[in-house]
Amino acid sequence: MTGTVYLVGSGPGDPELLTVKARRLLDAADVVLHDKLPGPEILGEIPEDKREDVGKRAGGERTSQAEINERMVELAREDKSVVRLKGGDPMVFGRGGEELRHLAAHDVPVEVVPGVTSAVAGGAVAGIPVTDREHASSVSFVTGHEDPTKVESSVDWAALAATGGTIVVLMGVGKLPEYTAELRDAGMDRTKPVALVERATRPEQRVATGTLESIVDVRDEAGIEPPAITVIGDVAGDRDAVVEWLENERRGEQADARSE
Amino acid sequence: MTGTVYLVGSGPGDPELLTVKARRLLDAADVVLHDKLPGPEILGEIPEDKREDVGKRAGGERTSQAEINERMVELAREDKSVVRLKGGDPMVFGRGGEELRHLAAHDVPVEVVPGVTSAVAGGAVAGIPVTDREHASSVSFVTGHEDPTKVESSVDWAALAATGGTIVVLMGVGKLPEYTAELRDAGMDRTKPVALVERATRPEQRVATGTLESIVDVRDEAGIEPPAITVIGDVAGDRDAVVEWLENERRGEQADARSE
Repeated sequence: MTGTVYLVGSGPGDPELLTVKARRLLDAADVVLHDKLPGPEILGEIPEDKREDVGKRAGGERTSQAEINERMVELAREDKSVVRLKGGDPMVFGRGGEELRHLAAHDVPVEVVPGVTSAVAGGAVAGIPVTDREHASSVSFVTGHEDPTKVESSVDWAALAATGGTIVVLMGVGKLPEYTAELRDAGMDRTKPVALVERATRPEQRVATGTLESIVDVRDEAGIEPPAITVIGDVAGDRDAVVEWLENERRGEQADARSE
Repeated sequence: MTGTVYLVGSGPGDPELLTVKARRLLDAADVVLHDKLPGPEILGEIPEDKREDVGKRAGGERTSQAEINERMVELAREDKSVVRLKGGDPMVFGRGGEELRHLAAHDVPVEVVPGVTSAVAGGAVAGIPVTDREHASSVSFVTGHEDPTKVESSVDWAALAATGGTIVVLMGVGKLPEYTAELRDAGMDRTKPVALVERATRPEQRVATGTLESIVDVRDEAGIEPPAITVIGDVAGDRDAVVEWLENERRGEQADARSE
């Protein structure tokens, strides 16, 4: 008998943004393979004896993708029900496709359980719609943290700028100076609104806003740190009109939580 | 007293892909404003006396966005807890931004509850990762069904093709001939893999695959109908390697469901 491996998205960090299915599979799983991306609130709700952290190993090195792939197959062949829990959605810069192909190639039954991606949710909870009928007919997601074995970036920033749509950069804090420079060089307006959303949907969520010109300074002054997404586009300027109400709601919820 | 309006994403259609928070808010709501996009499985689980269909009105016309906006404010001012339920994610081509701004401008407390977007989930459950370390460094979402009051499309298909990343078209069945022609004219390879995913994550889910050249004929032969997404890019060719295992799993679940 071979167990099933579920490639499950954990959403952006708030445990309530797990899907009902993810919650059910986590409860039923024999083993949950994870790294730290799902965040402490979600990981803290999973019993310790089910959890296997494949984001680190003795000596401080990261577990390689090949080792994770092997471990999933090994556990499935022991007829375990395995949840491979991934931050956000498993197929959005999460190597979910590679894991899916590996499992299928080794005759392991597999199912993909989509999650809420922080690329969408990060803006949404900060009052920024990633698309808008008036001024964003498309939205593109890229990662600021490409495969380090690649010699040069394969992201065509000039083409992304030319779409005229919103650009969302995941894991986009560290390389912010590089890609904002590429976008300026490609002719994007220096006054284009840009927002950084750190730890979206989690209790410590922070938002900082500026322009394509100012955002690196804004980042440094605010001390924005990973994990965070960057939203580039006119929609990032929509936040001002709504933020007072969103923030009131958020503070209200936190006050409610404290008084319980 | 003014009630809160929750702009809630219902996900792609499978009720288990609602978030835990969406499920909680639906249970607690006084009124759920919806159209038909969340799909019959999700709407069927909401008690009839809570539901208000704002997708249609007497005479067969659609309720206008202005009327929906007014109705949300009206209910909140009656101190109702209002869920505005939207298919997928409220901020991905869902006019969530407009509703958010309207509510904030009328001093109505509002919260956005992100959902699983079918733009990501549609591919994922069909075995297609929207990004891939090897051959898709970005993914762009566009809608095939733009605001009908716009004179010409504001989507720059040539720029999207130039990104080299995956393109996902939501509501993309009807205009498939037009935008595949635009992509070919922009120089995209005619053999580029394309997949259509109809009613993703729902019991009647169907997938049809072809190339940029063949996909219109494929659509017609398979009789693919809305709602469906179109995935354009090398990732759409990844499906073959994994589909046998995904389909086995899906059939197994359906057999389980029947035997219960």
